[in-house]
Amino acid sequence: MPPTSATAKRIYLQEVVTRDGFQSLDRFVPTEAKILLINELSLAGLAKIEVTSFVSAQAIPNLRDADEVMSGIMRQAGVEYSVLVPNLRGAERALPHRPDELNLVMSASETHNLMNLRMTREQSFRQLSEIVRFADSSRVAINISLSTCFGCPVEGRVEEEWVLGFIARFRDLGVRGITMADTTGMANPAQVEQLTARALALAPETGFTLHFHNTRGMGLANVCAGVRAGAVRFDASLGGLGGCPYAPGASGNICTEDTAHMLGLMGYETGVNLRGLIDASRRLPEITGSATPGQLAKAGTIFDLHPAPAWLAEVRERAAAR
Amino acid sequence: MPPTSATAKRIYLQEVVTRDGFQSLDRFVPTEAKILLINELSLAGLAKIEVTSFVSAQAIPNLRDADEVMSGIMRQAGVEYSVLVPNLRGAERALPHRPDELNLVMSASETHNLMNLRMTREQSFRQLSEIVRFADSSRVAINISLSTCFGCPVEGRVEEEWVLGFIARFRDLGVRGITMADTTGMANPAQVEQLTARALALAPETGFTLHFHNTRGMGLANVCAGVRAGAVRFDASLGGLGGCPYAPGASGNICTEDTAHMLGLMGYETGVNLRGLIDASRRLPEITGSATPGQLAKAGTIFDLHPAPAWLAEVRERAAAR
Repeated sequence: MPPTSATAKRIYLQEVVTRDGFQSLDRFVPTEAKILLINELSLAGLAKIEVTSFVSAQAIPNLRDADEVMSGIMRQAGVEYSVLVPNLRGAERALPHRPDELNLVMSASETHNLMNLRMTREQSFRQLSEIVRFADSSRVAINISLSTCFGCPVEGRVEEEWVLGFIARFRDLGVRGITMADTTGMANPAQVEQLTARALALAPETGFTLHFHNTRGMGLANVCAGVRAGAVRFDASLGGLGGCPYAPGASGNICTEDTAHMLGLMGYETGVNLRGLIDASRRLPEITGSATPGQLAKAGTIFDLHPAPAWLAEVRERAAAR
Repeated sequence: MPPTSATAKRIYLQEVVTRDGFQSLDRFVPTEAKILLINELSLAGLAKIEVTSFVSAQAIPNLRDADEVMSGIMRQAGVEYSVLVPNLRGAERALPHRPDELNLVMSASETHNLMNLRMTREQSFRQLSEIVRFADSSRVAINISLSTCFGCPVEGRVEEEWVLGFIARFRDLGVRGITMADTTGMANPAQVEQLTARALALAPETGFTLHFHNTRGMGLANVCAGVRAGAVRFDASLGGLGGCPYAPGASGNICTEDTAHMLGLMGYETGVNLRGLIDASRRLPEITGSATPGQLAKAGTIFDLHPAPAWLAEVRERAAAR
């Protein structure tokens, strides 16, 4: 049974469209459009916005304007502004902008870590540890995102023990948050429920985020499984933007408005303004130049009822006369 | 924890693409293409195929070839062949083709019933009762599909008591099966779990099917919720075909191959040949003239791994040398 308002549980939605969604687009989204979108999203009741990534312009040309974007946005109280930093250089660039959080990344699978970060996992872990020490002095919160927790597109199966081993080490670094990411949409609900429960038990004091992609259609089913296991924070992307290079044409990140809509119907409190999100999502194709995979922007919510057709009255009368 | 093979639970997938998927397409799918597709699906391990609808050619021109299709297909042992019949006339046309099942329909909401069937719900129920009596003599199995069980696109909320009231009356008619249909994709997982559990308790001897649409992205989450409540039969459509006239551009029925893939990963036994389904799904756009909303045909399964890039060996060596 869905919880009643008296028992409604809070779920925190964290928006990643301007980082994960925009980074692999075919076209550069103008800096001004990014700032306008983030300002709009700042008013939509989201718990956190991952604004951009302080990565080299060569690595991700679409996010080469990280400094301008962070300088240009109007921050709202109650919203956390996070930035992804791939290395110490990125952290040094990011800190003057006073983000609320630095989001660091490495992969649970060795092959994906080598492909994505050109380092072994142990080298990545040492580098993350250095950034954590560096950030300690500036008192910025740290989140570590562990990619490919539920499967690697090259290696396939990712052992739960690898994931839990890194989570224990991140916990011991004293970071505020840890994200388990299903980077290429390989997670299934049974796996999510089991691994999330184990991870939460291992680091009960750490803020946990689940980051899903809808590549194989299981995105919202995985959200439900995560909630059942006790997770309360989810990354999502407006319009479901955020393609995976291994699955051209398939869906991207789970869609923020679709996720908020489902959780709201189930009795959870997300705090978001769903109409505002849908309006923003419907304008995304103008910004990105292509259709978005999210469903709600096309179908509307279940509360968007349709008028009865004009001929219904006559049909009703005829039926009554039978 | 997913069940192990020793405890794997059987889930029955019932294909509706040539009926629900094709009925509202912009173009007529040639009879020969329908027959070839059904013959292919007959070899894919599906429990049931809803072949066509014996409805008037004016009402649904795309299915005007119901007689030819039923005459032309090669049936396989172990697969049930069902046909939708909207009225006694349809049942009379269908029976000479010796279908394994007649699928009858009415709606849980009065407005949807009037719009779709031009009758009140009570008139529809009387008509269904007549068809059941008529079919009794020919010993064909009867399934009744109750549309809009989880919401009506015009009325909105559908009371659980309406749904359960009709389910009790269908049970008392002695039909073999009942389908609860989320005709326009309004169901959410909490609602599905609760209503399915109540329905199963009310008619424990009746075969129950859940029929979901992915209009608002909740399709596979609803399947998981249904399974948790005890449902073991699900309708699905190859490629996710089957649009809803109220949501242009949005997804249609839940996608057969996406559903089978998820359930298989969760440890359930569906009996289907997933590769065969994906191959058939990838050829659907040639038949229908448009892209399909299903994900797996684009993304592949989680077992379709990607080769490591050629430069990985060098990256690995450089990392090792550090």
